[in-house]
Amino acid sequence: MDASEGMITSVENIDWESHLAERTHRMKSSVIRELLKLTMVPDIISFAGGLPAPELFPIREFDEACHHVLQNEGERALQYGPTEGHRPLKEFLAEKMSKYGIWVELENILMVSGSQQGLDLIGKLFIDPGTSIISSRPTYLGAIQAWNAYQAHFCTVPLDDDGMCVDELPSLLDANPDSRFIYVLPNFHNPAGITMPIDRRKRLVEIARQYDLAIIEDDPYGELRYEGEDITPIFRLAPERTIYLSTFSKTLAPGIRLAWIVAPKPIIQRLVQAKQGADLHTSMFIQMIANDICKRGILRQHVKRLRQVYEQRRDTMLDALAEHMPAETSWTHPKGGLFLWASTPDQIDTRVFLEKATAAKVAYVPGFAFYPDEKGGSHSMRLNFSNAREEMINEGIYRMGIAMKKELAGG
Amino acid sequence: MDASEGMITSVENIDWESHLAERTHRMKSSVIRELLKLTMVPDIISFAGGLPAPELFPIREFDEACHHVLQNEGERALQYGPTEGHRPLKEFLAEKMSKYGIWVELENILMVSGSQQGLDLIGKLFIDPGTSIISSRPTYLGAIQAWNAYQAHFCTVPLDDDGMCVDELPSLLDANPDSRFIYVLPNFHNPAGITMPIDRRKRLVEIARQYDLAIIEDDPYGELRYEGEDITPIFRLAPERTIYLSTFSKTLAPGIRLAWIVAPKPIIQRLVQAKQGADLHTSMFIQMIANDICKRGILRQHVKRLRQVYEQRRDTMLDALAEHMPAETSWTHPKGGLFLWASTPDQIDTRVFLEKATAAKVAYVPGFAFYPDEKGGSHSMRLNFSNAREEMINEGIYRMGIAMKKELAGG
Repeated sequence: MDASEGMITSVENIDWESHLAERTHRMKSSVIRELLKLTMVPDIISFAGGLPAPELFPIREFDEACHHVLQNEGERALQYGPTEGHRPLKEFLAEKMSKYGIWVELENILMVSGSQQGLDLIGKLFIDPGTSIISSRPTYLGAIQAWNAYQAHFCTVPLDDDGMCVDELPSLLDANPDSRFIYVLPNFHNPAGITMPIDRRKRLVEIARQYDLAIIEDDPYGELRYEGEDITPIFRLAPERTIYLSTFSKTLAPGIRLAWIVAPKPIIQRLVQAKQGADLHTSMFIQMIANDICKRGILRQHVKRLRQVYEQRRDTMLDALAEHMPAETSWTHPKGGLFLWASTPDQIDTRVFLEKATAAKVAYVPGFAFYPDEKGGSHSMRLNFSNAREEMINEGIYRMGIAMKKELAGG
Repeated sequence: MDASEGMITSVENIDWESHLAERTHRMKSSVIRELLKLTMVPDIISFAGGLPAPELFPIREFDEACHHVLQNEGERALQYGPTEGHRPLKEFLAEKMSKYGIWVELENILMVSGSQQGLDLIGKLFIDPGTSIISSRPTYLGAIQAWNAYQAHFCTVPLDDDGMCVDELPSLLDANPDSRFIYVLPNFHNPAGITMPIDRRKRLVEIARQYDLAIIEDDPYGELRYEGEDITPIFRLAPERTIYLSTFSKTLAPGIRLAWIVAPKPIIQRLVQAKQGADLHTSMFIQMIANDICKRGILRQHVKRLRQVYEQRRDTMLDALAEHMPAETSWTHPKGGLFLWASTPDQIDTRVFLEKATAAKVAYVPGFAFYPDEKGGSHSMRLNFSNAREEMINEGIYRMGIAMKKELAGG
């Protein structure tokens, strides 16, 4: 064999794009991730990611849990497991969700490798090329990315202070009669930080029933409420047609990639088939560690702590915005979650302004990233308040304010 | 709210199937998994799964690795990570693969959540509804399942003692000019246990170049060789067009769901986009644990031990087959891996016979499960020799022999 064998050389220039499936034309690298690369400069204060506060991770408790699991059930933890998920963990989740009025059996639950996988499997199940699906605009970037890969046709309604404007749905649905589901983030919407009140949830359910549509209820932050009372989940209002998603990413740790789906049994059975083909099953080891942590009451204590810290960080950001931002700016007041949504004066295009913000060592996600057609959000930005410490939040918003005022004054 | 709210009742009987995407008609629950349920009866000896020997898992080493990782890099391990994978682990893999003549940079490697995810992402990238793809018959069940979900058109060539009959490829490719890739398992083929010699690998590469096709080289068992010399990987022969898959599932533990893909950079970039939408990234915690284990030299030692034990188990199964099976039966002699492929007399349909085998407390996977069209393999079965201890292998094959002789004698 000559020495060049095994080296990828430029001799053979294959036109890979011509070998790929249609859907790849719709698949782009996540704008967030690409932008995050731009913002990875020293000393930057980033409000761009959706990252939990790493200094709060229950590291010691994880270490204990790993030791327990490996010592007591090591062979099971390291072996192949059932696609449906680890039963003891599903029992814990069924019990936990009953406090929110979601009463289900284990056959209504599927463990997945993060909520993103839930969105992907839902896309695989429901979306043919060109299938219409309904979301708010703006909506969660990860859902856009997951469903673009299935060539979905996004039909959108705007948000107001109470979330998705559901009264606009009937005319949209009449115009798109092949629609398959409505995607909502009723608690502390990503990116907008808005929560949907009970009356609007009920109206949404009425419409879904009238048009015989599934509802995808994405609820990653429901437990991270800093004020007000819990609102009945849509799943409870329409358990026959709701596919509910939640995750350990924000309450425990995103690095373990663990989430779950609750849905009618025929849908879970179909999701199990899809998951078999997608990754066989979610790591048994990870599920057993999470179960150990949950059973010892650590999750509950930890969420309590997160609520305290994140509430303070939210308040710090709200105060800093009031102090430092130009007068023509506004923002939402989230009652929970990780994000708020700020609106800038017309002269500021947040996509263009990002370069100046980055130069001023502060980062955010420009609003356009949350619009399926990328048309919209030019004067909006998503700001995360969970990741940075309070002094950094203050400093970062100060930097943003200075940069924005400079921009408004003509650069 | 009345008490029935939140309960899934049968009042609303939704016809879910009419709400689902076209592709779901091709998605079926894995035959293996459904059959495994049938065989989950007490005292059964199962040769059906592809499970490693659980008593050999390096449990103590995992415990140490968890402790190291959490103590030294806990915040990083539990946080979101890059889609591309954990760089130190990729460095280890690049170094390791160089021993097999695969010389690559980190940008040629993507970490995935098990090889099954690799197959799914490849499907997402390459397969439109009706796209032709080339495999052997029989072929790996998980690939059939992954690519059925993308509505692939499987075009197959038979296997002989040297693997895929590549000389039949040109006429098949002429008849299916839209074919996108050739899928091969050159080392210790699943299910057949056959290894492809170097000359045939070279011929395969020639044909792939002539027809400008990608090659998917699935190599989960390459390190588990019990006799003979390593054979040059196809990736080394055609690095410009080969997508190589390998995994920690058989060498370390399947419960961690960790594998990797090696491919030309443009393909890795596209796979990264697909993975972002599919599950964001593979667990950082898991990748860092694997890295810790690999760096301490444990993987190498462990694979050495697996080779010794699995070689003995293979030999035990070969001897037991010779002793107990009816005279008209034959089987392959794998030089590595986890499986052998047995052929039964014409009177025995392995799909039908499974019930009798299960009654006799022994299980296998019937051959039809490995045929994309389920036509074929009626007189074949896959037998796993890695999971059961030697005395159980003996006893299981004894039971199988008795049951088969009884069947041949007219039940």
